[in-house]
Amino acid sequence: MKTLKTIEPNNRTPLYYQLEEIIKEQIDSGKWKAGEKIPSENELLRQYEVSRNTVKKALDNLVQAGMLKRVQGKGTFVSKPKLEQSLTGFYSFSKVLEEKGLEPKDVLIDLNERKVKASIAKHLGIAEDANVYELVRLRCTVNEPIILETSYIPKEMIPEMTKDELSNHSLYDFMATKYGVMVTKAKEIFEPVLIRGYESQYLDVEEGSPALLLDRIAYNSEDKPVEFCRSIIRGDRCRFYTELI
Amino acid sequence: MKTLKTIEPNNRTPLYYQLEEIIKEQIDSGKWKAGEKIPSENELLRQYEVSRNTVKKALDNLVQAGMLKRVQGKGTFVSKPKLEQSLTGFYSFSKVLEEKGLEPKDVLIDLNERKVKASIAKHLGIAEDANVYELVRLRCTVNEPIILETSYIPKEMIPEMTKDELSNHSLYDFMATKYGVMVTKAKEIFEPVLIRGYESQYLDVEEGSPALLLDRIAYNSEDKPVEFCRSIIRGDRCRFYTELI
Repeated sequence: MKTLKTIEPNNRTPLYYQLEEIIKEQIDSGKWKAGEKIPSENELLRQYEVSRNTVKKALDNLVQAGMLKRVQGKGTFVSKPKLEQSLTGFYSFSKVLEEKGLEPKDVLIDLNERKVKASIAKHLGIAEDANVYELVRLRCTVNEPIILETSYIPKEMIPEMTKDELSNHSLYDFMATKYGVMVTKAKEIFEPVLIRGYESQYLDVEEGSPALLLDRIAYNSEDKPVEFCRSIIRGDRCRFYTELI
Repeated sequence: MKTLKTIEPNNRTPLYYQLEEIIKEQIDSGKWKAGEKIPSENELLRQYEVSRNTVKKALDNLVQAGMLKRVQGKGTFVSKPKLEQSLTGFYSFSKVLEEKGLEPKDVLIDLNERKVKASIAKHLGIAEDANVYELVRLRCTVNEPIILETSYIPKEMIPEMTKDELSNHSLYDFMATKYGVMVTKAKEIFEPVLIRGYESQYLDVEEGSPALLLDRIAYNSEDKPVEFCRSIIRGDRCRFYTELI
């Protein structure tokens, strides 16, 4: 019977891959806990009899995937667990944070009026020259950015929106309170992507890190689209789940 | 009113990013169609008055994301649309392909018995030294691999499984037919990841390309786990959608 507790040099999988799987197993099985310091590079290369390059590549991959965290001068640690977000039923990023005892903290990056792009006009069911608000926000916990969101809201739905009005409310609460627009349904389309340089500055991760690109169309109770929102969600901090029956 | 049909040198977003967005808009809005050849690098750098490096970076990013496809000696083309898979309700990858008129073609890479890893024992609700079948498959259409799947099935559920038996059936059909084990529910947890060297050989994409890592636990009608399956799904060929109410 095979076990994966040791590196098998004759195994068809590369050594760095085997070492990643061994470390991941230590974490996934709960043997190494969140916040715990893992063995040093020297200890790992001695224990598993592999080269420093092999150890470095394995650790680099696990850091980029968000499983490990390097702390300058101290070592490498098991990351805190990822934020888990359900895609079954209507979810709220703020609620996910609150349930974990983390305080949601949004940063409004930009709010401006513009002509809608043709591709987004299609999603919103409006004319190609219609006016929309473009709202760019960074969704954060107290000490880290998690999601970069760009929302497009038709001006015919929401004639007026100011930064002040949004600084005190969630977007949906604002839309409901000021204009009676209630979001009751949403469709989401998503795919894995790489974070690009421009986005990486806001999200505080390396360019090329994995992320989820998630497009949401939100509808009111008459099935009319009221918002198109494109989000870039850090893959190293988030995980998603659904239930299929 | 801003439009994004031209590069704005004073815009805060980098030039390559603006050019990517312009090209993506041409594709998303339907102006450039799947299979159509896009303007050459020279034409793009002249039209938008940017450097060759800028054009190259934008095109490289769009190729890696799966929106464009380079054909040696011919040029760069708009990719065929991605395979769209619903995560609402029980879906089947084979059905997704068939609905698109594509023939599913699975390659059985490995089938062996082993002791289950501790982390997977937890998901399957079995003891850490229990025996499982480990089944590695490459899910493909006629001419391209899409998903690399590794399934773990407890031997106490499925005492015997051979390559022959699986070559003629889907895994779930085999389990139902031979042992009366019916999969009626599944939970899925997923996150965006980068494809690693070992996986990239099977999936025929570059190392570092975006993918979805999807873990599924499949249950029988008594809510007992019968399979744990880890999939790496090519992000350049697949997109996913859900409906939230």
